Amino acid sequence: MKSWIESANAPECHFPIQNLPYGAFRRADEAVRCGVAIGDQVLDLSVLEATGLIDAGSAPVFAQPTINAFMALGPTAWDSVREQLQSLLSHGGDDRLRGNDALRKRALVPMAEAELMLPIRIGGYTDFYAGKQHAFNVGTMFRGPENALPPNWLHIPIGYNGRASTVVVSGTDIRRPLGQMKAPDAAVPSFGPCKRLDIELEMGAIVGTPNRMGEPVTVAQADDMIFGYVLLNDWSARDIQAWEYVPLGPFQGKVFATSISPWVVTKAALAPFRVATPAREKELLPYLNEGGKPLLYDINLEVLMRPSGAKAATTLARTNYRNMYYSAAQQLAHHAVGGCKMETGDLLGSGTISGADKTGYGSLLEMSWGGKEPITLDSGEKRSFIEDGDTMTLTGWAAGDGYRIGFGECSGTILPSPKEPKW
Amino acid sequence: MKSWIESANAPECHFPIQNLPYGAFRRADEAVRCGVAIGDQVLDLSVLEATGLIDAGSAPVFAQPTINAFMALGPTAWDSVREQLQSLLSHGGDDRLRGNDALRKRALVPMAEAELMLPIRIGGYTDFYAGKQHAFNVGTMFRGPENALPPNWLHIPIGYNGRASTVVVSGTDIRRPLGQMKAPDAAVPSFGPCKRLDIELEMGAIVGTPNRMGEPVTVAQADDMIFGYVLLNDWSARDIQAWEYVPLGPFQGKVFATSISPWVVTKAALAPFRVATPAREKELLPYLNEGGKPLLYDINLEVLMRPSGAKAATTLARTNYRNMYYSAAQQLAHHAVGGCKMETGDLLGSGTISGADKTGYGSLLEMSWGGKEPITLDSGEKRSFIEDGDTMTLTGWAAGDGYRIGFGECSGTILPSPKEPKW
Repeated sequence: MKSWIESANAPECHFPIQNLPYGAFRRADEAVRCGVAIGDQVLDLSVLEATGLIDAGSAPVFAQPTINAFMALGPTAWDSVREQLQSLLSHGGDDRLRGNDALRKRALVPMAEAELMLPIRIGGYTDFYAGKQHAFNVGTMFRGPENALPPNWLHIPIGYNGRASTVVVSGTDIRRPLGQMKAPDAAVPSFGPCKRLDIELEMGAIVGTPNRMGEPVTVAQADDMIFGYVLLNDWSARDIQAWEYVPLGPFQGKVFATSISPWVVTKAALAPFRVATPAREKELLPYLNEGGKPLLYDINLEVLMRPSGAKAATTLARTNYRNMYYSAAQQLAHHAVGGCKMETGDLLGSGTISGADKTGYGSLLEMSWGGKEPITLDSGEKRSFIEDGDTMTLTGWAAGDGYRIGFGECSGTILPSPKEPKW
Repeated sequence: MKSWIESANAPECHFPIQNLPYGAFRRADEAVRCGVAIGDQVLDLSVLEATGLIDAGSAPVFAQPTINAFMALGPTAWDSVREQLQSLLSHGGDDRLRGNDALRKRALVPMAEAELMLPIRIGGYTDFYAGKQHAFNVGTMFRGPENALPPNWLHIPIGYNGRASTVVVSGTDIRRPLGQMKAPDAAVPSFGPCKRLDIELEMGAIVGTPNRMGEPVTVAQADDMIFGYVLLNDWSARDIQAWEYVPLGPFQGKVFATSISPWVVTKAALAPFRVATPAREKELLPYLNEGGKPLLYDINLEVLMRPSGAKAATTLARTNYRNMYYSAAQQLAHHAVGGCKMETGDLLGSGTISGADKTGYGSLLEMSWGGKEPITLDSGEKRSFIEDGDTMTLTGWAAGDGYRIGFGECSGTILPSPKEPKW
């Protein structure tokens, strides 16, 4: 399928007509509304809805600052709007947009002129730990290879509650956090700017439809509840995290910021790229059974770093989402099994996605092996962790036959710590 | 100060004119609106606001289903409305409410006819671990008395992100969660209803005004940001929690439900009961310094259990909020120190409040010492943990001279686990 918007047909374009990811944007001083990425354009869904070219089968949902209202309509509406959009945008389809100059000008906004906003209103953000290579790497550094994997790891898609208020959209600058830390050889803790600032390469799954409080869902139902996926960078202050995380888990080491990509790629767009989770090393309890369905996705992922002033970014890692041991549907089923109410707009981080070796590790902690083996960038500079002014970028795409289902980018530049107030 | 609403003047009444806690309520099929508790009545603030008897100095904020809009106005509005209400409700004050029969009938709703709702829209819920006796008790059970307190405990007000979507108001029934657990002597984990269901007696602090992302606040600023306090029951599934919590902290053991009391007691009402935190056992880093200000409160607390069918509840524990090692202001300052954005309506759980001995422990885990020493109820029944049909109630008050600043009750009855779906 090809679009009459030519930029969407380039083989490496992230946003062909097969993709149609949802986001929120504004131009100049206009109100924020919902849009879909197509080639190098943003299609203004509020305009299409107001003029009757698309109909979600409900009261208007797109003249809103997030896609939550649309997601809450559920799978029938998701499928219907996707079909309507593909018809309006494809060669030889519905001509009502293509053939109407004035409307086209109003409805298509060059992406370069659009300010992309956080696409979802996030009720709850939960971060998981489902990458086995990452868990093994980190466990090896902290506890040695014999005790690397916690005893529950092969039985539970381990997760913890994250902080929703500091989830920001790609492009938002990130302040290096201040915090409490303790060097291994120090007698007492100290306070100051984080010295071991890191990323975590993750995918984020977005809950489209809710369950009811007190009622579990099956893995199949959980998969049906998921609307789509984004790239997610779980910024991490390793020195703060190391001192705080026993016994109740990561807190100040993580809550200062989490970045996501602006376009939510739908489950429908990713359907051709479904793959099974790896073979189970221990049998899972029935509530986590996937019933033989492929619930992961074959998504190529990359991590890039560009130091301040450098001409180009250095690619630090290449890996794939299919490396995860648990799927987002399994994580969501586990999340709800005790009756936790999951809501439209909840965000589930996959956990750090690391490949089998150093070329595919999803954090600097792993790439530099705890800072012991600094990485050399293309510019010749060395890095163990992130320095002020560095821009970190995640990107990813599923590779179709002659097209890509792309996620765009998830990037952020590190600003120096704030000045300490007079305590 | 006395009120012309006579029920407010009884010495053991929780809601005298000195208190005036804020909540949300409805009568029959009416819309939810904001109210204040006074004696055995709820004063409908939306009526007073609409008729001009109170003015928060803003667009209307009380004809809304939560008190968030009012809280967001900040301390000047909080003080002003409190003063206006005390004038309208006191003997010898402003006669516009007392002297107007028709208005009084509309504005005063017997509490017995009001359905009390969740008073706040909670953006983020964070739970802390600031009770030293509780941390010592639990640590002793799990690791022995020498290693009871984690090494960071005297330096950090340890906290972790909780789940906001399942915070419910007192009176909401709680379903026993299903979940994954592993008996210490079992080879593999199992699945089923929680067998060690517990409470945690806590106070909840409610953030009234926000900070800015990326900017820390001092302890004094944090105290200014707090609007008020509620009772909080951090329901806990001990068997699920024990198997899951290493390495990333409590998750399914806690996310199924948290209950809070319906009335938010303001910082102003609690001002006469401020007390200092206990002497520091280790010097704190400057960012946690309280500057000699008393930031805890002298609040009597009780835990009660009533089995299904029992005529009366048994009081299981009596303790006091002043036992905490860290104040809510210190917890909030720690929470924001790395730049985490705190928002109007955020809820901070204090951590379990346990007194020095068994008569004052804030969880059944501690009272029954891990189930080894069952408790005998007044009815003769024994309990190690909570059984289906049991009602757990927290209550608390600060004792003034001839009056109480009360929190009412925070209660919940346990329903059996849901039937397992066909996995």
